Amino acid sequence: MRTRIAASGGATDAHNLEERAVDDLSAFARQIFESQPFSQFIGARLTGSGPRDAEISLPISGQHQQQHGFVHGGVISYLADNTITFAGGLALGGNALTSEFKINYLKPARGSLLVARAHATGVGKRQAVCQCEIYSVEDGEEKLCAIAQGTVVAAAQ
Amino acid sequence: MRTRIAASGGATDAHNLEERAVDDLSAFARQIFESQPFSQFIGARLTGSGPRDAEISLPISGQHQQQHGFVHGGVISYLADNTITFAGGLALGGNALTSEFKINYLKPARGSLLVARAHATGVGKRQAVCQCEIYSVEDGEEKLCAIAQGTVVAAAQ
Amino acid sequence: MRTRIAASGGATDAHNLEERAVDDLSAFARQIFESQPFSQFIGARLTGSGPRDAEISLPISGQHQQQHGFVHGGVISYLADNTITFAGGLALGGNALTSEFKINYLKPARGSLLVARAHATGVGKRQAVCQCEIYSVEDGEEKLCAIAQGTVVAAAQ
Amino acid sequence: MRTRIAASGGATDAHNLEERAVDDLSAFARQIFESQPFSQFIGARLTGSGPRDAEISLPISGQHQQQHGFVHGGVISYLADNTITFAGGLALGGNALTSEFKINYLKPARGSLLVARAHATGVGKRQAVCQCEIYSVEDGEEKLCAIAQGTVVAAAQ
Repeated sequence: MRTRIAASGGATDAHNLEERAVDDLSAFARQIFESQPFSQFIGARLTGSGPRDAEISLPISGQHQQQHGFVHGGVISYLADNTITFAGGLALGGNALTSEFKINYLKPARGSLLVARAHATGVGKRQAVCQCEIYSVEDGEEKLCAIAQGTVVAAAQ
Repeated sequence: MRTRIAASGGATDAHNLEERAVDDLSAFARQIFESQPFSQFIGARLTGSGPRDAEISLPISGQHQQQHGFVHGGVISYLADNTITFAGGLALGGNALTSEFKINYLKPARGSLLVARAHATGVGKRQAVCQCEIYSVEDGEEKLCAIAQGTVVAAAQ
Repeated sequence: MRTRIAASGGATDAHNLEERAVDDLSAFARQIFESQPFSQFIGARLTGSGPRDAEISLPISGQHQQQHGFVHGGVISYLADNTITFAGGLALGGNALTSEFKINYLKPARGSLLVARAHATGVGKRQAVCQCEIYSVEDGEEKLCAIAQGTVVAAAQ
Repeated sequence: MRTRIAASGGATDAHNLEERAVDDLSAFARQIFESQPFSQFIGARLTGSGPRDAEISLPISGQHQQQHGFVHGGVISYLADNTITFAGGLALGGNALTSEFKINYLKPARGSLLVARAHATGVGKRQAVCQCEIYSVEDGEEKLCAIAQGTVVAAAQ
């Protein structure tokens, strides 16, 4: 995860300004995330952000399961949708929404935690195309359980 | 919704058998749906089923929202994923799972209810390709807010 | 196919104006299509257009095949891409391009002709979401061989 | 491109056998590719292959263009479809076909050459999920112009 780390004292002014802009954007992302009732309801947390990246984590509990005890595909598609939104929004520098995405499920997810990481691969003025990987953490090991690809568009002002 | 309606007395035996098979499959679908903890948690109900069709409804409440008061995309993608699973499973005649899907959001969803309807457009021996429309019901009127397309594969026995 | 038919004399002026606008748009679509070298090279023709619809046909010949004698998936994906572009462009009223699409192949295509029909299902100011069906014509009968769904965006002026 | 390189003399027998298997599979892939009339017609060449990877290149000429002089999206979607087929077929070890894919166009393609590279990210017994990047080569520099994601299924024997 390309989460930004706070800079030390020796950085140039220009660098400091850029750092602050990224800090501000990360804070903005956290604030938006925390104002999403559904993300709170489902139990997700924004655990990383960068200029073109976002990471959302979700501790797995019984209520996330489908009929066979695996994580429901809808939980995984929520992670794809929302992580893509944040990676794209960070790349576009403000309010944004996912206009479409596609997901392939690779293997059933179980374990203690889901981690979704999205990266804005192609960034234009008004839209960003993002790729997302969703991992389940089982016995301390990350297993890739789904991949997604989608478009984020800047919200009309 | 092509929900099957119970047949009257004059039907032929062959017809009755087929009816019973459809009844059994619908009952099987309901049973599976009710054993999905996530579908219970999110508040969805299987409100229709047919030989190649499924309908899932979800009364909208505050916990389904994103930061602007609309329904979160993850709720809508859950509906696409699961309604496609049931339409495909009914078409394939048994246990099945969505292996991939794609969704386009057409307009923000709000109102009192979401209704998702999926139909298996192409059915083979081991997989079904389904299309799904997701409507929000606002002031008693259905508005198309997303369309999806995906693949359901028969679960290994 | 919702191809517009020339109006008779009794129409109102407003109706005539609208008819002319549709005629103009269809002529504009034909002109664009005929200026696509790849569409000429592959042997496709724009065989229908309407306010939100387009139809492209392609007589099948040996050069369109893959290794087993069926039509190559790339020919079918060309039809999906381009028919979606024209349906979306007609709906948006001008120059447009497909920004993304997804296709599911339902059955191998052979026969004498392919016909692709796209419809703009969701139309906004700057983008249209379209659905497309691609048929092969075998022994005079249309068989659905693929379905697609994608986004068309208005070209920057 | 993870194209296999011939092994030197010191390899173990097991290694030699595996090398030969990969050589055989690459030769098999080339043979299939060369028996695709549409790939010959459009002017594409299989320029790389590995246990889970394929690369297809296409020198750009006038006949590949759309109305504005860029490469037609249908040419790029052909590359996505076919490169995904070969990466998946190599990963599955035999005859295979693309059952579905999704593509996002990132920027208009022009220049002298297109290069598409696909990798099988998730491989099961009967299907492989692949990701593909399509580059245009302009002034000797590769520019990412589209990304795709799709499913390849083993052909019925």
